Amino acid sequence: MRFRARVEVKLRPGFFDPEGETVKEALNDLGYRVENVRVSKVYTVDIDATTIDEARLLLDEMCRRLLANPTKDLYEVEVQPL
Amino acid sequence: MRFRARVEVKLRPGFFDPEGETVKEALNDLGYRVENVRVSKVYTVDIDATTIDEARLLLDEMCRRLLANPTKDLYEVEVQPL
Repeated sequence: MRFRARVEVKLRPGFFDPEGETVKEALNDLGYRVENVRVSKVYTVDIDATTIDEARLLLDEMCRRLLANPTKDLYEVEVQPL
Repeated sequence: MRFRARVEVKLRPGFFDPEGETVKEALNDLGYRVENVRVSKVYTVDIDATTIDEARLLLDEMCRRLLANPTKDLYEVEVQPL
């Protein structure tokens, strides 16, 4: 069976987000009064697996091995059948 | 009033996603049979506005001016009171 996963990877609270800070400054320069800009990434991944639980397990493994850095990142995985 | 916005910016379908392709190859090299990997960005932004509609309007403007490129990107804005 084929599944589509959505993986969101974001910095843990307290970790400095240089990209978010740069975007905040650019928006301030354009005249927008914004604060606390944070940037995260979403990976959409299609995967073949026997069950949705197997797909979730594989995605969790991919996060720990490649997509996220557990020391500084939090991640969330959502899987649905395609 | 203060609002928190969540802005997701992704490539329009059909646009080549080099980052997604690189991640796909890296996952394949690790032994995961994945396909169609796409990467998008989520900006979390705190903003002061008089009403939620004003906040939405401002965020939409920010997307068109800075956060997204309307030629190649699609974006979605969600705003909620803080």
